[in-house]
Amino acid sequence: MKNSESVYQTKFSERTKCVPRSFIRDILQTATSTGVISFAGGLPNKEFFPVQEIKESVNRVLLNSPHTALQYSNSEGFLPLREILSSQYQTDGIEVSPKNILITSGSQQALDLLGKVFINTNDKIIIEEPSYLGAIQAFSMYRPEFLPVNLGNDGINRESFEFLVSVADIKFAYLIPNFQNPSGISYSAERRKEIAEIAKQNNLLLIEDDPYGKISFNNQRKKSIYSYAPQNTILLGTFSKTVVPGFRLGWIVAPDAIIEKLLVAKQAADLHTDIFAQHLVCDFLSNNKLEDHLIKIRRAYALQAQEMMKSIRKFFPAEVQYTNPEGGMFLWMTLPDGLSSMELFKKTMKKKVAFVPGTPFYINRNDSNSLRLNFSCSNTDEIQEGISRMAVCVNEMLEQAKALIS
Amino acid sequence: MKNSESVYQTKFSERTKCVPRSFIRDILQTATSTGVISFAGGLPNKEFFPVQEIKESVNRVLLNSPHTALQYSNSEGFLPLREILSSQYQTDGIEVSPKNILITSGSQQALDLLGKVFINTNDKIIIEEPSYLGAIQAFSMYRPEFLPVNLGNDGINRESFEFLVSVADIKFAYLIPNFQNPSGISYSAERRKEIAEIAKQNNLLLIEDDPYGKISFNNQRKKSIYSYAPQNTILLGTFSKTVVPGFRLGWIVAPDAIIEKLLVAKQAADLHTDIFAQHLVCDFLSNNKLEDHLIKIRRAYALQAQEMMKSIRKFFPAEVQYTNPEGGMFLWMTLPDGLSSMELFKKTMKKKVAFVPGTPFYINRNDSNSLRLNFSCSNTDEIQEGISRMAVCVNEMLEQAKALIS
Repeated sequence: MKNSESVYQTKFSERTKCVPRSFIRDILQTATSTGVISFAGGLPNKEFFPVQEIKESVNRVLLNSPHTALQYSNSEGFLPLREILSSQYQTDGIEVSPKNILITSGSQQALDLLGKVFINTNDKIIIEEPSYLGAIQAFSMYRPEFLPVNLGNDGINRESFEFLVSVADIKFAYLIPNFQNPSGISYSAERRKEIAEIAKQNNLLLIEDDPYGKISFNNQRKKSIYSYAPQNTILLGTFSKTVVPGFRLGWIVAPDAIIEKLLVAKQAADLHTDIFAQHLVCDFLSNNKLEDHLIKIRRAYALQAQEMMKSIRKFFPAEVQYTNPEGGMFLWMTLPDGLSSMELFKKTMKKKVAFVPGTPFYINRNDSNSLRLNFSCSNTDEIQEGISRMAVCVNEMLEQAKALIS
Repeated sequence: MKNSESVYQTKFSERTKCVPRSFIRDILQTATSTGVISFAGGLPNKEFFPVQEIKESVNRVLLNSPHTALQYSNSEGFLPLREILSSQYQTDGIEVSPKNILITSGSQQALDLLGKVFINTNDKIIIEEPSYLGAIQAFSMYRPEFLPVNLGNDGINRESFEFLVSVADIKFAYLIPNFQNPSGISYSAERRKEIAEIAKQNNLLLIEDDPYGKISFNNQRKKSIYSYAPQNTILLGTFSKTVVPGFRLGWIVAPDAIIEKLLVAKQAADLHTDIFAQHLVCDFLSNNKLEDHLIKIRRAYALQAQEMMKSIRKFFPAEVQYTNPEGGMFLWMTLPDGLSSMELFKKTMKKKVAFVPGTPFYINRNDSNSLRLNFSCSNTDEIQEGISRMAVCVNEMLEQAKALIS
């Protein structure tokens, strides 16, 4: 076996050699051990899965259209589902025709298809710093040059963004303006307009990823960048955070010429997305008020986020900074300069608390002092207990660092 | 819109420019018009979908494990499902550990992931001639050089295969030894051994795609090439023809080092395959005898294939050749030299009969005299009627050709 295995190594493609084994997958495996309080995952809270409603949808779909729901289907996706999405967008004030929507096997597949359709080796793409790990992984397969632009509390840094667009040939910019994963940061209305304007003036293509937009704690949704620059923007959505993630249902909104290319790539990638799951979600949305369901999720996640921030204020030293997410599932913490979040991870794991160190959300960094905390899957007690245990470790590290200096 | 659209064209990746819009997708759309007798599709017969059994599985899964069946899951695939596959292989006399099985979003995704993990631009890969269209599409995205080797009644031509392997650096050979799509041809036991031997001697990687193996009309299954050369073979399977296609569930069997790379590619491609569908099929296989279900499918498809061959003998001129499939869903027809199957398609569509002309199953051919006929979705009357209408067109074309010569 050994001999043959080493022989395979010579056969792998160049693109595969570039992509490291997923660091976060290993962390998540450790984090799911029994007794660990985990802020590491990126999972929606399973308590809010609409199990009963899905059961009812299954019965209706298997009664009314068992054969079409179980047979091969088209690559575009189930038309009635795309029509529902189109009308949801209309409610948000955006005109999107069903023919400009492609159903994907989760948002992750949208990223892979976009990488496939756009990226040549060494193409330059702008991403936020930090950015979503899954996007970095998907795009990496096509070997682009990543140009990270700092993400501030109002969104991506306008000056750096504009400068890069003016000096470099950018294939696209990948942005997550609502309650970003990993940082929890949202763009201000002003920054959205500015970025849209820069895109229009420079014929720049934007990919606007919006998995968390509907999970706004105060239900104040800012307008999408797409609404300011529809010809320059590819908009992504998903049912993973609003209905359930297990079905793997996402979608892409794009102009005709791009949809046509994506469709060819989609067909080559997996022919089409599970049509049974598409029927189920379509039926679920037709027979239930999604908004009623979202209210419960928003209320719960808001309380969890508040509890986490309260605990951080209570237990952590003042030198530690953290974002104030108004939606989504994540909060981003920055330790004082010189402290390593990877070191902290090793320490907190001994106390059975897990989180994701910031490094994999950056390009080409071996270590960082930032980290991601997920609050959607832990209850109040776990949040208090987990944060207080983390704080003990941070205080220890800080003491040691100060002792070294003095 | 027009201006912007033309601007997108300059942004697409090189790989996308190479892949044409799917010809077969357009044909299938025409073929599904009302009143058309279609031998064009590649669909399993929906009459045999185990709808009642799936309903029972849904109820059990939503009762016993609603949360894990709807939550995010791991990229490898549902372990109990991989264990069932492992034990099915054991019944067939093949040792495969669950850790060497990766669940994919249909077999089509297996092809895409293998292309991604192995193919560099201009890498040489051997395929059968004709070959499966979906594989040509998936691999084309990674821009290999295809080396087609003629497929005879005993399988791929041994001499040409061995010659190519000896003179060229081949990344892999893609083979469908059982009831191939499009030709219906199966490799003899002897040819399987010969190909396995050539692979072992030349350190050649084989991809053995087996969607139809279990649909053998006489239930006489020949041993897989994998069983002769497990270290050199990646084996693909799917539930699309044995359970239902709509769930998009397939799998890859491969050695450790390859599974590890595929896993990284799988995670980047769509995180994981619909876990609800994985739970359903796992439950279905645990609570039903797949073999009882397959007996019905085999019996029906065998009768349909026989009816088609009988009708061809009855209505078609003797110059027309056709394969004698002993399983699967397709039969391959070769018209006399000089007759175009694309011309025939235009004529039969006027008589409301559809099939797929042979051209897209070849590399770099603009026309061919061969064509694919699907028999699994038409009843006896439709087969007789459709074949007789086709025969009228063929006879006309043959008369015209003879008139031109004389």
